[in-house]
Amino acid sequence: MGNLLQGKKGIIFGALNEQSIAWKVAERAVEEGAEIVLTNAPAALRFGSINELAKKCNSIVIAADATNMEDIEKLIDQTMEHFGGKFDFILHSIGMSPNLRKGISYDDLNYEYLNKTLDISAISFHKIIKTAYKKDALNEWGSIVALSYLAAQRTVCGYDDMADAKSLLESIARSFGYIYGRDRKVRINTVSQSPTLTTAGSGVAGLSKLLDYAEAMSPLGNGTAEECADYVLTLFSDFTRKVTMQNLYHDGGFSSMSMSLSAMELIEKGLEAEK
Amino acid sequence: MGNLLQGKKGIIFGALNEQSIAWKVAERAVEEGAEIVLTNAPAALRFGSINELAKKCNSIVIAADATNMEDIEKLIDQTMEHFGGKFDFILHSIGMSPNLRKGISYDDLNYEYLNKTLDISAISFHKIIKTAYKKDALNEWGSIVALSYLAAQRTVCGYDDMADAKSLLESIARSFGYIYGRDRKVRINTVSQSPTLTTAGSGVAGLSKLLDYAEAMSPLGNGTAEECADYVLTLFSDFTRKVTMQNLYHDGGFSSMSMSLSAMELIEKGLEAEK
Amino acid sequence: MGNLLQGKKGIIFGALNEQSIAWKVAERAVEEGAEIVLTNAPAALRFGSINELAKKCNSIVIAADATNMEDIEKLIDQTMEHFGGKFDFILHSIGMSPNLRKGISYDDLNYEYLNKTLDISAISFHKIIKTAYKKDALNEWGSIVALSYLAAQRTVCGYDDMADAKSLLESIARSFGYIYGRDRKVRINTVSQSPTLTTAGSGVAGLSKLLDYAEAMSPLGNGTAEECADYVLTLFSDFTRKVTMQNLYHDGGFSSMSMSLSAMELIEKGLEAEK
Amino acid sequence: MGNLLQGKKGIIFGALNEQSIAWKVAERAVEEGAEIVLTNAPAALRFGSINELAKKCNSIVIAADATNMEDIEKLIDQTMEHFGGKFDFILHSIGMSPNLRKGISYDDLNYEYLNKTLDISAISFHKIIKTAYKKDALNEWGSIVALSYLAAQRTVCGYDDMADAKSLLESIARSFGYIYGRDRKVRINTVSQSPTLTTAGSGVAGLSKLLDYAEAMSPLGNGTAEECADYVLTLFSDFTRKVTMQNLYHDGGFSSMSMSLSAMELIEKGLEAEK
Repeated sequence: MGNLLQGKKGIIFGALNEQSIAWKVAERAVEEGAEIVLTNAPAALRFGSINELAKKCNSIVIAADATNMEDIEKLIDQTMEHFGGKFDFILHSIGMSPNLRKGISYDDLNYEYLNKTLDISAISFHKIIKTAYKKDALNEWGSIVALSYLAAQRTVCGYDDMADAKSLLESIARSFGYIYGRDRKVRINTVSQSPTLTTAGSGVAGLSKLLDYAEAMSPLGNGTAEECADYVLTLFSDFTRKVTMQNLYHDGGFSSMSMSLSAMELIEKGLEAEK
Repeated sequence: MGNLLQGKKGIIFGALNEQSIAWKVAERAVEEGAEIVLTNAPAALRFGSINELAKKCNSIVIAADATNMEDIEKLIDQTMEHFGGKFDFILHSIGMSPNLRKGISYDDLNYEYLNKTLDISAISFHKIIKTAYKKDALNEWGSIVALSYLAAQRTVCGYDDMADAKSLLESIARSFGYIYGRDRKVRINTVSQSPTLTTAGSGVAGLSKLLDYAEAMSPLGNGTAEECADYVLTLFSDFTRKVTMQNLYHDGGFSSMSMSLSAMELIEKGLEAEK
Repeated sequence: MGNLLQGKKGIIFGALNEQSIAWKVAERAVEEGAEIVLTNAPAALRFGSINELAKKCNSIVIAADATNMEDIEKLIDQTMEHFGGKFDFILHSIGMSPNLRKGISYDDLNYEYLNKTLDISAISFHKIIKTAYKKDALNEWGSIVALSYLAAQRTVCGYDDMADAKSLLESIARSFGYIYGRDRKVRINTVSQSPTLTTAGSGVAGLSKLLDYAEAMSPLGNGTAEECADYVLTLFSDFTRKVTMQNLYHDGGFSSMSMSLSAMELIEKGLEAEK
Repeated sequence: MGNLLQGKKGIIFGALNEQSIAWKVAERAVEEGAEIVLTNAPAALRFGSINELAKKCNSIVIAADATNMEDIEKLIDQTMEHFGGKFDFILHSIGMSPNLRKGISYDDLNYEYLNKTLDISAISFHKIIKTAYKKDALNEWGSIVALSYLAAQRTVCGYDDMADAKSLLESIARSFGYIYGRDRKVRINTVSQSPTLTTAGSGVAGLSKLLDYAEAMSPLGNGTAEECADYVLTLFSDFTRKVTMQNLYHDGGFSSMSMSLSAMELIEKGLEAEK
């Protein structure tokens, strides 16, 4: 195990269970020398197995609803108390759409649910950053990362209002990235990850087929949760200090492909079968 | 006057006064042979001079709060009644941020106001499209356009949460553009316009300097409201039937510039003055 | 028949036969009131049926190798003579890759052939623009368009070094777009068209399958050559004066899609067949 | 000193002198545990101080003209001999434009020079990759990086035909990235770096003003050569295995900015001075 994050401290949002990307980031961050605080929504703490992770990572767990400013403020305060001062990084790996969960299609969106989708999946990012910024909780050259997905730029049938939420999330990264960078030298980026078989991802209809397709289209294959975690660590490290306001694809090349040989073969078979 | 929109019918949202881009679109659409219905929020109808425009355009005015589904449904019903059936185009030129208006900076956003910003400036677009889609109000090869701004992709200091709203707006255009295109051959695009001295734009601090800068940076100079209107007309016409889910820059080239000779001269003078 | 280009005059490069997009642009431009001059390489003039088009369009044909500065200079001179002065638009619809033609794959490129690919398909655009600029051949608010393809941004297996040529082409549009816009108010754009069954396109291996796939992925279906021509006309018209340095997708929405329902069904069938 | 590149071996093109980004990459790579081979064109070896660097890095220097296939083949052979087998990474930091050097403006390009610009600055990248690919010189999960600049996407007055060369370079990264990824799990990316005061950069007219402007526009300030080197190391490391075919901005946020407070203040002063 290396020392990429030696001496770094941070908060990780969204580790539900072993499938979670946030879980992998937590494990790998600690292996690379970081100290972490884990947090998730109270309900997620009950459903998931985060205490197991906390034991493994020698970290504490603080319950916080990421849409609730009071919760976030307490979280930041307790984290600073725990670390004895400022810290260095934040991972936002939070997303949920009631419309998607209930199978309400995009042309039929329930607007109260849409507000929840946006609040949980995107505006929570603003709330967390704003609180850290107000409390001056991050060291200079600190780093904030949120997980995103290509649907923010290109439509994926079935991803519903989560596409809009991810667009908003990426915009918040830019908008606040300017201010936090200018004022405190803190960088903010999003990582646009391959489709991944997490508990959250499994809500997307036909995810396994989407995964097979993305695998066929990506020259390096889909990025796994572990590989995504490693990539996120580079963004928390001192090796990427001047990278900010970016949306960075960790997807085996998918986002830069229009047609691969393997995907073309799949499609040919599909076309033949269609006849 | 030409015949680019001969036989086309449509709704235009957001004509407040002569400065409004929507106002220019209305005038030019009628000059090019279209029939239109004008609509705006009740408050905007009182403040503005839309009746003058209606007279000029031989159109009716229907009050509708674009965040209110009942209002939108009535609007679509009355429009179809007025036109005697389906129509062809919709312009969305609506945007307002209480945070921006009250001078609340991005690192200090009021989240209730943010919800209003998003609801008025972006989600209203979904509500309008959803209603038209449900009521099957648009003819095949119909066209929907919303006005956007480069801040959706690149941060403009002082544009506040409107940047996030425009990102969301552009995402909605893509997400619904897929469905409406697939199911009814209706296209949805956004036009990303130069900064423009409208009543809405004038709320942005330092707009006149931003205009001067954009003028210096753009090889063709800023797009005016009139020129923007002409561009929007092409998107309503039958000449652009297969263009959809795009964000189209009408900005004199600004979005593809990093440094022009004129802007460099401005900056040189600024650097000298700074010494 | 309309009057979108009433009074406009222009040169059209690359009309080989009825399949050519340039052919359709020529026909439609004349129908909309333009006067045109047709040009193509001497070899293309022999193979194709351009004289038929010239008759229909009441135009002259001038042979010119678009990689040869002398030819281009003569062409511009003769065109100005023919029109009795300056003209308004240029269409560049030229592309050829000896590597692609000879089935030399991208990892095995012949570099002399690559130079030819770039010279014919991209640098020719610079040569044409430079000549027009030097001779001040275009009226203020003139418009120059080149045809491109999404492979310039996203890799299409089998498109070979034409992808690089299209990237270079789009860069030239921006680089010269700045200068020509600044100095003479002439705009330069590229149109990124759906895969199209032209004589040039038919050199791409598996094009018909690529077309089927793009058709399934695009909410509005592929743009046809005729529809592309109509779109190009808007860019030559006075309705788009402030649009420059852009790459504009005419592709039924393909470029903004990551996964459609129809494409997913194709892929599912392919996955099943693969088992 | 860390161990980010422990056990990795690679070739570094383009270290001329201490200002060179390639020089910093060499130093930092070795500090992080890598073994390297240095290479540059024979002329550059004479002008520069690469032997000093070689001593410091305990590396050999192999002269090679990156436009000459024989030279590149020898270089790859000798490198494999030196390392006793395959290696892991390649840095391409090569760019030169005779047009820029001789002050020939973009609207007046000499086409022989343009060919040289493209050959040296972009096609050399293809030649190097092709040779490594043919000789199977890179280990699985190897990594290739070339240095680029934002002018590839957005025009910078005075950057001349180097903008087109960088576009071509980025396209080659994608086109070959697909093939090398698919066949051997090797990734290819470009890093788009802030303007930097290197010997190469100093050929760009008004570079120091461009630097001041970029500094004012970038929330984190310009990326330095040292910081860029650190970023490149992450792309050579095992932490970024699934990142490929990307153009990655290392620019303090510049590419995602349209207007910053500091830049606005500069421009205001410039506008006042202009009156």
